[in-house]
Amino acid sequence: MKINGVEIEDTFAEAFPIKVGRVLITAVTERWALSSAREATGFGTSVIGCPAEAGIECMVSGDETPDGRPGAYILVCNMSFKALEPSLLFRIGQCVLTAPTTAVFNGLPEAEQQFDSGKKLSFFGDGYQKQAELYGRNMWKIPIISGDFLMEQNIGAVNGVAGGNFYIMGQNQMAALTAAETAVDAIAKQKGTITPFPGGIVASGSKVGSKYKFLKASTNAAFCSSLREDGVCTMVEDVSAIYEIVINGISQEAVAKSMKVGIMAACQVPGVLRISAANFGGKLGPYQFKLQEILK
Amino acid sequence: MKINGVEIEDTFAEAFPIKVGRVLITAVTERWALSSAREATGFGTSVIGCPAEAGIECMVSGDETPDGRPGAYILVCNMSFKALEPSLLFRIGQCVLTAPTTAVFNGLPEAEQQFDSGKKLSFFGDGYQKQAELYGRNMWKIPIISGDFLMEQNIGAVNGVAGGNFYIMGQNQMAALTAAETAVDAIAKQKGTITPFPGGIVASGSKVGSKYKFLKASTNAAFCSSLREDGVCTMVEDVSAIYEIVINGISQEAVAKSMKVGIMAACQVPGVLRISAANFGGKLGPYQFKLQEILK
Amino acid sequence: MKINGVEIEDTFAEAFPIKVGRVLITAVTERWALSSAREATGFGTSVIGCPAEAGIECMVSGDETPDGRPGAYILVCNMSFKALEPSLLFRIGQCVLTAPTTAVFNGLPEAEQQFDSGKKLSFFGDGYQKQAELYGRNMWKIPIISGDFLMEQNIGAVNGVAGGNFYIMGQNQMAALTAAETAVDAIAKQKGTITPFPGGIVASGSKVGSKYKFLKASTNAAFCSSLREDGVCTMVEDVSAIYEIVINGISQEAVAKSMKVGIMAACQVPGVLRISAANFGGKLGPYQFKLQEILK
Amino acid sequence: MKINGVEIEDTFAEAFPIKVGRVLITAVTERWALSSAREATGFGTSVIGCPAEAGIECMVSGDETPDGRPGAYILVCNMSFKALEPSLLFRIGQCVLTAPTTAVFNGLPEAEQQFDSGKKLSFFGDGYQKQAELYGRNMWKIPIISGDFLMEQNIGAVNGVAGGNFYIMGQNQMAALTAAETAVDAIAKQKGTITPFPGGIVASGSKVGSKYKFLKASTNAAFCSSLREDGVCTMVEDVSAIYEIVINGISQEAVAKSMKVGIMAACQVPGVLRISAANFGGKLGPYQFKLQEILK
Repeated sequence: MKINGVEIEDTFAEAFPIKVGRVLITAVTERWALSSAREATGFGTSVIGCPAEAGIECMVSGDETPDGRPGAYILVCNMSFKALEPSLLFRIGQCVLTAPTTAVFNGLPEAEQQFDSGKKLSFFGDGYQKQAELYGRNMWKIPIISGDFLMEQNIGAVNGVAGGNFYIMGQNQMAALTAAETAVDAIAKQKGTITPFPGGIVASGSKVGSKYKFLKASTNAAFCSSLREDGVCTMVEDVSAIYEIVINGISQEAVAKSMKVGIMAACQVPGVLRISAANFGGKLGPYQFKLQEILK
Repeated sequence: MKINGVEIEDTFAEAFPIKVGRVLITAVTERWALSSAREATGFGTSVIGCPAEAGIECMVSGDETPDGRPGAYILVCNMSFKALEPSLLFRIGQCVLTAPTTAVFNGLPEAEQQFDSGKKLSFFGDGYQKQAELYGRNMWKIPIISGDFLMEQNIGAVNGVAGGNFYIMGQNQMAALTAAETAVDAIAKQKGTITPFPGGIVASGSKVGSKYKFLKASTNAAFCSSLREDGVCTMVEDVSAIYEIVINGISQEAVAKSMKVGIMAACQVPGVLRISAANFGGKLGPYQFKLQEILK
Repeated sequence: MKINGVEIEDTFAEAFPIKVGRVLITAVTERWALSSAREATGFGTSVIGCPAEAGIECMVSGDETPDGRPGAYILVCNMSFKALEPSLLFRIGQCVLTAPTTAVFNGLPEAEQQFDSGKKLSFFGDGYQKQAELYGRNMWKIPIISGDFLMEQNIGAVNGVAGGNFYIMGQNQMAALTAAETAVDAIAKQKGTITPFPGGIVASGSKVGSKYKFLKASTNAAFCSSLREDGVCTMVEDVSAIYEIVINGISQEAVAKSMKVGIMAACQVPGVLRISAANFGGKLGPYQFKLQEILK
Repeated sequence: MKINGVEIEDTFAEAFPIKVGRVLITAVTERWALSSAREATGFGTSVIGCPAEAGIECMVSGDETPDGRPGAYILVCNMSFKALEPSLLFRIGQCVLTAPTTAVFNGLPEAEQQFDSGKKLSFFGDGYQKQAELYGRNMWKIPIISGDFLMEQNIGAVNGVAGGNFYIMGQNQMAALTAAETAVDAIAKQKGTITPFPGGIVASGSKVGSKYKFLKASTNAAFCSSLREDGVCTMVEDVSAIYEIVINGISQEAVAKSMKVGIMAACQVPGVLRISAANFGGKLGPYQFKLQEILK
């Protein structure tokens, strides 16, 4: 299968279950919503070494938010609901409550699992916090030095998917990187998914396990062109650099859609030669996203 | 004391000791250096609820970096060297090693305290990592799917200062916020300091302690204009909103300099009425930065 | 009439007819589409002193463009079709043909008025240009040093509207400015309109005419708070600063819609007191946009 | 000669004399200074089809500006002082006077040639303008609806240089483009020069003249890789895409310095193969910048 001359390999992305909380941050301008969302989702690339996986799902205009202000949806992901609750609490408390002009709304009000993060954070008001029905939501009003901070009582979470992915293989590093950038931009407009790595991109795609017992993941040596002379790299000759896009989402459908949109975008960039994906014989997880099926 | 018509209150900022690691991230362009630096310093506003305090110190051109590429200095702070080491390791490993085109250099090669973070991360190479003298530095070369990742063997750290601060008091929220933005921009050009909160700004300045025993910090109610009718707010009448700038740095001198530069910038913004600072009778820490002395 | 506590004055915006050409610029990434679009629409605030009025209408994803790449729609406006043709030709030739990775498509293929700008620019190919049916469009392929530049044969234009406007009146400058920023952001997502002034905002709203015969427009003194003591300023007491949003569009409907969206956004910003609009007894033009009707 | 493995061709850039005006725009924040500077320097790539050549020279902090606010230096260039004067007047009047929170200062107060642009623009005040000695400068204070606009009486201009240039030759388009981006970033920190094309980059490097008599410039066919099969392209085999950086400046020294800084930056990008420059046997102008001498 080829798209715009780019070979789509007959393979699949392997992914695993994760719990996903969804938060809507609004602010006086898009810039300030983005500023808070960035801080709240930072240090959140992989649960291997970060306290959570997190990213900005998409930006929304005031006509899509309860308070009529521009906003950012963020997703925060962890391996269990028990681990997710403090991730939400601390990321919102330390990075959104503290950010200029923000308010917080439940991004998944229909979800079965709800955390009372708003109630818990309201204690920061030191007794001056008040509950109020606002915008049809159950809100807390917490006096802060810049005004009042508003936060909804609950934040919802669902069973989601982590590790959806594809590999962009390029003639050289800059071709693959520019394709990765435009793929991330395209995915950023989709609902329900994030690309949690820096700038949405993984430079150092890994395999499950390592020759070192203390490491859960290590470099995917078979795809490292600098190991070609060692015979370790088994990639086709003309590819010299790969970037990986990793996608988490609130459902398999959302992840599949973002994979499609991202791959289509990447295939428009000159110097991109192939699209592949990472899988590990089930060692990573039960979900399989077959590239050629997704792209039909 | 007045600057440009803005009253500088006769008070001081109270701050506390912290351990500070300094990392230079370089990349193929400024944008990619910034992208990695943002991810690596996210979820890093306050050790009260974040695993570390972190921020971007400043951006540098290729003529100031070992590999001739543009870069970003970041500071990562924690309460002990023991706590700082994993903070550096995980933030670099998860957010810089994984980021497109980055390399990592020791930002404090002269410091007494050195962590062998580069050596530890090199195991990601799964046996294919190699040590090399490059740019006059002791580097590790780790094969990754996008090329090779280069990282210096050691990252240095020093005894620094956290919690340097000032309050920007405005006629209204947008005046105080714009002043906070321009203050943060000015501080961003200084060496040796960070403003770790979202966009560099604290919307919810806190006091030490709370009426709730389980809370270490709570809203600084005496400065909340929405509590004026309750008699809790003791602020002068004309001030209706405050933003706080919190500054961490590698030395008292660096923090004092950034406080000065930030206050001078804030005082240029129309609608700013007063500059003050937060202190807690020594409950926060031993350092005192007197505003009027700093500004002399 | 009040929106979110902000008084909407019972007045109208006066606007005038203008000719509007619409161009779709695509590029390898959003960033590069934006970079070209900015250059092409610069020095384009008002026909009083600029060679055209121009702005970025909106950004679009690859799924909305003929070549599947991200893009920017721009509008270029002039007082006659005769004046508009060279404006399009030179702005595209000097600022899009010259920009990295761009292609140009007709933004109004259904319009009656069509200019053969693509054919004219193709001569830059010095005899090596070629015509080709691509993406279902009649395209020119011009060899350039970075690859091939693709441009559609025709660019369409319509009878549009210039000078749609509203005034954001604030307690102080920063409140009005932040409201102007968020209004511009909201309008930027609408189709068919631009806000041609710097950052989409007019700091120096003018009246038609002047005491100096050589000036077509001069400061709207009745709205200058610094002339209050002179008795010239007739504004209500509590307003101390105003920013104006000027909107051009391909139709009256598009302008009215963007005025509505912008006003709604501005009214969410604390410190905004009133919304008004500029009109000149018909001296500017025949179109009237009544604020309270638009907002119904 | 090689830099970081990149061949520096033994050739020179040909450039021509131009008149250069220099303007300092300050604003309440860097963002607003930049916003105005972008509008004021747009549609300013080449005098072949633009009313002037213009660009942002560099951004400066409040400690480098008369009013203590952040600022942007811009350069506006035209073929004669007579043509330059209205370029300055209209670009400042339409794009800086109209922009939020800006003030304008003379960027070349020591130059022999001075234009009284500030005096001329002050008439916009419709009789309410006032002259005042402020910040040690001779300023005009013009009441506008957002406050007062301040502008210095004079703007200075000098005999400068246009068309300094170099070619970045890449294995493919994205390698050359990324190198062009990082070169432009590096030059943006230099004083006294601009890169007037979109994003600082020329995608469509031209030669002087054309087979069509009505064209002053046409595609530099000998460097177009898509004309290789026609035998027109004489470039070395491995190069498939070129981007050109064009530099204007206030002196030959400034242009030479920026060429050096830009080339050094470009040579750090993987996939860059060669650096060359454009010259036309003196048909363009009298200045010659020899690459290998500049880089010594």
